[in-house]
Amino acid sequence: MFVWNWGRVLLLFLLICSVELHESLWPLPEHYSSGDHALSVDPALKLSVAGNAAASPILIAAFDRYRRIVFKHSTYGFSFIRKLSERFLSAFDLDTFNITLLSDNDQLQLGLDESYTLLVPHPNHSSQLLIQANTVYGALRGLETFSQLCSFDYTTKTVKIYKAPWSIQDKPRFAYRGLLLDTSRHYLPVNVIKQIIESMSYAKLNVLHWHIIDEQSFPLEVPTYPNLWKGSYSKWERYTVEDAYEVVNFAKMRGINVMAEVDVPGHAESWGTGYPDLWPSPYCREPLDVSKNFTFDVISGILTDMRKIFPFELFHLGGDEVNTDCWSSTSHIKEWLQNHNMTTRDAYQYFVLKAQEIAVSKNWSPVNWEETFNTFPSKLHPKTIVHNWLGPGVCPKVVAKGFRCIYSNQGVWYLDHLDVPWDQVYTAEPLQGIHTSSQQELVIGGEVCMWGETADTSNVQQTIWPRAAAAAERLWSPRDSTSQNITLTVLPRLQNFRCLLNRRGVPAAPVTNYYARRAPIGPGSCYEQ
Amino acid sequence: MFVWNWGRVLLLFLLICSVELHESLWPLPEHYSSGDHALSVDPALKLSVAGNAAASPILIAAFDRYRRIVFKHSTYGFSFIRKLSERFLSAFDLDTFNITLLSDNDQLQLGLDESYTLLVPHPNHSSQLLIQANTVYGALRGLETFSQLCSFDYTTKTVKIYKAPWSIQDKPRFAYRGLLLDTSRHYLPVNVIKQIIESMSYAKLNVLHWHIIDEQSFPLEVPTYPNLWKGSYSKWERYTVEDAYEVVNFAKMRGINVMAEVDVPGHAESWGTGYPDLWPSPYCREPLDVSKNFTFDVISGILTDMRKIFPFELFHLGGDEVNTDCWSSTSHIKEWLQNHNMTTRDAYQYFVLKAQEIAVSKNWSPVNWEETFNTFPSKLHPKTIVHNWLGPGVCPKVVAKGFRCIYSNQGVWYLDHLDVPWDQVYTAEPLQGIHTSSQQELVIGGEVCMWGETADTSNVQQTIWPRAAAAAERLWSPRDSTSQNITLTVLPRLQNFRCLLNRRGVPAAPVTNYYARRAPIGPGSCYEQ
Repeated sequence: MFVWNWGRVLLLFLLICSVELHESLWPLPEHYSSGDHALSVDPALKLSVAGNAAASPILIAAFDRYRRIVFKHSTYGFSFIRKLSERFLSAFDLDTFNITLLSDNDQLQLGLDESYTLLVPHPNHSSQLLIQANTVYGALRGLETFSQLCSFDYTTKTVKIYKAPWSIQDKPRFAYRGLLLDTSRHYLPVNVIKQIIESMSYAKLNVLHWHIIDEQSFPLEVPTYPNLWKGSYSKWERYTVEDAYEVVNFAKMRGINVMAEVDVPGHAESWGTGYPDLWPSPYCREPLDVSKNFTFDVISGILTDMRKIFPFELFHLGGDEVNTDCWSSTSHIKEWLQNHNMTTRDAYQYFVLKAQEIAVSKNWSPVNWEETFNTFPSKLHPKTIVHNWLGPGVCPKVVAKGFRCIYSNQGVWYLDHLDVPWDQVYTAEPLQGIHTSSQQELVIGGEVCMWGETADTSNVQQTIWPRAAAAAERLWSPRDSTSQNITLTVLPRLQNFRCLLNRRGVPAAPVTNYYARRAPIGPGSCYEQ
Repeated sequence: MFVWNWGRVLLLFLLICSVELHESLWPLPEHYSSGDHALSVDPALKLSVAGNAAASPILIAAFDRYRRIVFKHSTYGFSFIRKLSERFLSAFDLDTFNITLLSDNDQLQLGLDESYTLLVPHPNHSSQLLIQANTVYGALRGLETFSQLCSFDYTTKTVKIYKAPWSIQDKPRFAYRGLLLDTSRHYLPVNVIKQIIESMSYAKLNVLHWHIIDEQSFPLEVPTYPNLWKGSYSKWERYTVEDAYEVVNFAKMRGINVMAEVDVPGHAESWGTGYPDLWPSPYCREPLDVSKNFTFDVISGILTDMRKIFPFELFHLGGDEVNTDCWSSTSHIKEWLQNHNMTTRDAYQYFVLKAQEIAVSKNWSPVNWEETFNTFPSKLHPKTIVHNWLGPGVCPKVVAKGFRCIYSNQGVWYLDHLDVPWDQVYTAEPLQGIHTSSQQELVIGGEVCMWGETADTSNVQQTIWPRAAAAAERLWSPRDSTSQNITLTVLPRLQNFRCLLNRRGVPAAPVTNYYARRAPIGPGSCYEQ
């Protein structure tokens, strides 16, 4: 029994600590200061918008979303609290949210200004919260931060902001903060993609890298080549053009870009279900047939159709894991190679560069997996962004050659590697080994990759969360913001953020399980698992 | 490569089969017949209500929910399809849903009439769908069936009902079709409870057994004894009275009763965090102190407060796993037992019966776990419903004594037993060993139990689904509706229902994994995993 009692003492101690921690923010803002007042927030909080985007539908929708999140407990108590509020005019300390947008440009692109200032006043000075931002997307980031400052006080049954006044000046460290979703190995319904986009916005991630198609299935409708989605797993595991628009629009409303990927010439076997001519032969189906014009007509058709859907300036052309055996073993391709005096390696380069040309002609900056850079670095289009995955030390080489780089070292940022614990995800550093600021600027950011071989609707979210959040803070917050012992400065905040995700209905897994997405080992508080 | 090709042939074969299977219903209706026409459904489907409940807000809200489910693909294509529809008047085969409710009574109780008739017409005869039901809840069950008949045709981009005309007469086999949720071992946020209630309605389950409190934590607010929820895991892992009302109301809107449980005298250690007098001593904390009036005052206070929240006529008083060692080892209780000439077994009976009295005085029918029946069958209040869990063969004894019974044999219907595959859940039979119809009628139904020791927000849904659906069909459909080889008559429909759950955003796990909630073993279609 004594052992048990010490456990309870420890629990109480942790609970006392977590009172302080509950106001913690994730990811940490660039600059912030706080005081020691507790302010109550009116459930009928009014929005007052100033500046050049007073009627921004994106802002108004976001404010409604966050009001529902912050005041979710107030549904039934609402009318009573309203009455109280009306009777005693200053029943709540904070009753208005003033948001000023300096620009009405709501174009969502790489390098977008996401900075914001959030002020929670001293109780004697004002009853108004304040956000000032250059763009509506900065305001959205500020609203997320605001929502994390709010907590429901179960004693008074009001929403409170502790440690006011708050002054927060914030902006992201990296422009590109991505999450890859793979809808080819397992189809993810649109509802599920939306749930994930919504949860990304809580961690201030801003790029959904949609790895739509791969060798296993081709779920997307391509009007120009309508047989392509015959390569879907079934007639119901498909995305219409309208579905894709809906995903892009849903993401935009949350300040998230969607970067589509068409991974060529490898990882494309499913294309041939609808158009078998794309296979080198019925018996050897990958990579796509490099010798036919039809292959590039289809790529061009796909990209033409996709350009209408995906406004983001980056487009991913894959280019990884190309095994050219089918090219050298299929007679008509072998002949074509000889006629063109090409090795299979030359043909790989030829294919990638031709796909790049098509993408660039559509005003896209091509993104390619690092094998393309590793194989023919000097040939890549200068606009190319190289996507690291194989291991550490790649981005330093990429930026030394003047290319831009995205960091996704699989040893730490591949979420399907279930044996990578949160702290290894957290301490990964995209700028490792890059020392000049001009080269550092070429690292546009990083991305955690949720490959779908063993992740479907049933478990994708708990494989993503909470580890994707660890990367999200690395990508948003200043490099030295948590240089102390991360078990003290980071872990309790990450556990807190995981519980926040759970409260918002996101099935984020326990933080400290060695293997990702494992069940909790026994009963306990969310804040300690 | 040939092996691979045979795999593709098999895949195609399965796909052809699944075209037929896609219209499959879960759970199977009592009576149904179908034809061979395909009808398109207007995305602007109109609701026309007749009968005594024309303005039922429950029906109108349900119709809106199902319209969003059925027409989820139409968001963007909507206006185009509307225009088409307006130009060619009969662009869709079905444009109106006529629902007739014979009674305007929307009281939700055990034994409620959930029967309905659903007619999908022959295309030459009518453009109207029809539901007739005695209660609004019957109509809700019919709407769920309707939604399962609908599927999105990716070629024409319209919603279609295949195999029309349909004539379905349906009603449940058992009145009580439950799922237990345990919010003491892990706190489940209100959002998550709502997600689960929503998913229960898809499988036509109708009782949420809310095991709110247990020894680990006491998350519920009890206004009469406000220190009780000091036994919550943290200040944020709590339910206000308003939260509980919200859960009950959310469930009612979906035709689902909420049966609360207060498990006494064991499983109640967390009560003493706020009121240590409830413990036998600070060193021996369970079961609740049988010797003090205060103990029963607190139970009475809790039940008085809960009665306002939970209108369902059943209330669960637990009574399981009572280890009385603390009673015989604590001096003041030992003395009390001697003074009252009681053994600890007598005291257990005394406690349970006293709690039953309190519940009955509040017009509740008490439900108790089977240990109470196993220990003192002749003493239980005649209104008692005995909740089986320890194993098979209990309900036959219970009904032989004239009590009602709920079947939850842990060997097959405890969802935390991860090694019970879907077919064992499916073939479990609540009436096993009960042969007279008068005794069979005393088995009010069954319940699958989602104990929370290793299930939290991160994994509770994929532990529940799809296995809970297997039990749901057992409880709804006629006993002999699938007497054939269930690998043919049940498995493809269950896989189909799992994919339906996924499409609706519910993370139901692969069906055929031996261990529940395991990840898919590799890439593949939802319909085959």
